[in-house]
Amino acid sequence: MKSGLSFLVAARRCEIDELDQLARTGELVGAIGRLVHALQRERGLSNVLLGSQGTRFAAQRSAQIGECIRLEQDVRAGFERLRVEGRRLGSGTRLFSRIAWVLPGLDALPVLRRRIASLEIETGDATAALAKLIAGLLAVVFEAADGATDPEISRLLAAMFNFMQGKEFAGQERACGAAAFAAGLNDGTRQQQWLQLIAAQERCFHVFTEFAGPALAGLWRDSEPTGEIAELERLRRAAITAAPGAALDTELSTVWFDCCSLRIDAMKAIEERLADDLRALCDRKIAEARAEADTNQALLDRLADATEPPVATAFFDEVAQQPPTVKAYGHQLERSVLDMLQEQSQRLQAMSEELDAVRAGLNERKLVERAKGLLMAHRRMTEQEAHAMLRQVAMNQNRRLVDVAESVLSMADFLPGSN
Amino acid sequence: MKSGLSFLVAARRCEIDELDQLARTGELVGAIGRLVHALQRERGLSNVLLGSQGTRFAAQRSAQIGECIRLEQDVRAGFERLRVEGRRLGSGTRLFSRIAWVLPGLDALPVLRRRIASLEIETGDATAALAKLIAGLLAVVFEAADGATDPEISRLLAAMFNFMQGKEFAGQERACGAAAFAAGLNDGTRQQQWLQLIAAQERCFHVFTEFAGPALAGLWRDSEPTGEIAELERLRRAAITAAPGAALDTELSTVWFDCCSLRIDAMKAIEERLADDLRALCDRKIAEARAEADTNQALLDRLADATEPPVATAFFDEVAQQPPTVKAYGHQLERSVLDMLQEQSQRLQAMSEELDAVRAGLNERKLVERAKGLLMAHRRMTEQEAHAMLRQVAMNQNRRLVDVAESVLSMADFLPGSN
Repeated sequence: MKSGLSFLVAARRCEIDELDQLARTGELVGAIGRLVHALQRERGLSNVLLGSQGTRFAAQRSAQIGECIRLEQDVRAGFERLRVEGRRLGSGTRLFSRIAWVLPGLDALPVLRRRIASLEIETGDATAALAKLIAGLLAVVFEAADGATDPEISRLLAAMFNFMQGKEFAGQERACGAAAFAAGLNDGTRQQQWLQLIAAQERCFHVFTEFAGPALAGLWRDSEPTGEIAELERLRRAAITAAPGAALDTELSTVWFDCCSLRIDAMKAIEERLADDLRALCDRKIAEARAEADTNQALLDRLADATEPPVATAFFDEVAQQPPTVKAYGHQLERSVLDMLQEQSQRLQAMSEELDAVRAGLNERKLVERAKGLLMAHRRMTEQEAHAMLRQVAMNQNRRLVDVAESVLSMADFLPGSN
Repeated sequence: MKSGLSFLVAARRCEIDELDQLARTGELVGAIGRLVHALQRERGLSNVLLGSQGTRFAAQRSAQIGECIRLEQDVRAGFERLRVEGRRLGSGTRLFSRIAWVLPGLDALPVLRRRIASLEIETGDATAALAKLIAGLLAVVFEAADGATDPEISRLLAAMFNFMQGKEFAGQERACGAAAFAAGLNDGTRQQQWLQLIAAQERCFHVFTEFAGPALAGLWRDSEPTGEIAELERLRRAAITAAPGAALDTELSTVWFDCCSLRIDAMKAIEERLADDLRALCDRKIAEARAEADTNQALLDRLADATEPPVATAFFDEVAQQPPTVKAYGHQLERSVLDMLQEQSQRLQAMSEELDAVRAGLNERKLVERAKGLLMAHRRMTEQEAHAMLRQVAMNQNRRLVDVAESVLSMADFLPGSN
């Protein structure tokens, strides 16, 4: 009995450790969210600067870069804290690899910024470069969500990841539109890309709604700036339905940028709310686990104080009816310990089931990543080309990206080798 | 660049920690396998003792109990080592809860043994009691397999778990047949249970074959004692096809027991081989991870020695073509670091995919557990009753247990509440 209980106490301690670790990871996710938000804004401003041949937004962009540098320090400090303390982390290997992957991107940012300032780079390339960096940062968030062992926390992290991903597509749409309006014209390729970005946002927010639950989803719908959304839809329609190559009013670039920014700022508020909820949830879970650990410990102490150790028999009660004679001293106490172990076991079972459900939601992303990897390997494509190809097929066939990814994976054997 | 590399080194260290932990868990799994094997034999001997009203196998059973007690000490010591060292364990919470659940069963074993010796318990109840204990021990193995983060190791652990589970069904069949032959008669319920046990074994060994690969599966087929298997099949047919209630030759109980035991001993040899393979695999993986960590560290040192730090730009090479002017000193070195990070990222992607595939194989078991839990909650059944019901439906409808479990889960909303 005592030995069983001491393992229950050990299990609780592990749980508390994991929750502590998740709380710290949650804080890092919040810091990443703030940096991503600032980088998205920098990208939009940079695109207007490039699209306008350096005539617009130069000062705003400089101020924004200052903000980005400040927030980057928080993220780097958070990474470093995890590295110093984090050797106990469950998914440490994968999380650290993602961080290792994205850090050279942050290192390379000053050079990229100088090239943008001196107009040495195409608008599309600048967008792609910052999108690559942001994708690397979001991959860290994804890994944190995938590595969480508590289903409620995992669910909230999955909601956050999908919301952040949706917001990134909204940011890419802002950049795409900003470039189009600033240049004063649109073309067919950009129109198609634009439509894809709208569809991708909607998919992400749909998954977010599933994971976040009705309260948060409602809060988000209510927080959207109605007037700006209407204006946004009008500008979208005007730009996307215009005949390819038709002129766009360059004055609209500011209107477009402001509408998009107000909408994205509203998203940012929801993201902050998600981060607050995550912090509160971790705190509550830690308090619960500590209270249960105390209960277990008290019972363990009570057993240690018992003058005569109880005869252990209750384990087989259910399967092999015990005659009353063996129901010796302490049977009642033993029964209550067993009930606790049983309860713990059922709780873990329920947690494990819920965790499976949450992870299934993350699988969509994994499918797309795998399909891209397959295309990169078999058709010698870059990641961008592979993604573009999947998107193109999805649009041509009017199917969801994830469905196309599944088809690609199921056709793996029929793909040409790397020849 | 340096910061990225230091996280790659941190990722490797996590990997080495996880592998060390897996190696220790693997040793525990081996010790559990030996104890389960001894308990299975004790169960068979106990059943003949009970079935023969205490006239057969009393001495062999006493000797076997001594063996079990010795092996139990190894398992308890292994549990304790994990508890003392194991706070860094990924799936610690769940693994420790499983251990906490099964320890009271080991504590209650002496009382159960006394009741069997004094013939105070029914044969069926004795089998069920020992089966419950063994199921608890196998659940620890399952948790170890489910918590492994390396796909190759997870695959081998999954193969081991399924093999051990199949062997346990073979052990239950030995006990079931031993009771029937010792009692000198069979009945319809036992015949149905017997058929189920044969089917369950075959399913487990099928999954084992999938995970273990052709070499190990072939080794297992070759190691089966041909003569005894033929005899076993003859005895199975005779007992299962006999009219319910017809007399069985009590002298055959020894023949039956020996045939089953030889077959199970052959399984034990494969199980030992699996444990050896697991140890070798962990050692190899640890050596590989250490070598890679050394390579990373050497590169990190080389960067630290560089008189002028390289200008980081290569991250954006792919998406934003860099003009030659910015390809400054150290670009080549930076490129090689980036390639290493890229490689690591792809390796993790591949690992993650393979791990998903391995876990899908473990899902079958989870589905059955979930369906049982649902029946227990909604129909106020014991675990045994729920399992019996699933089995019965599977048999009546001639479907696999896992398919019935899936149907039950999909019908969850239509189940009556706990009224």
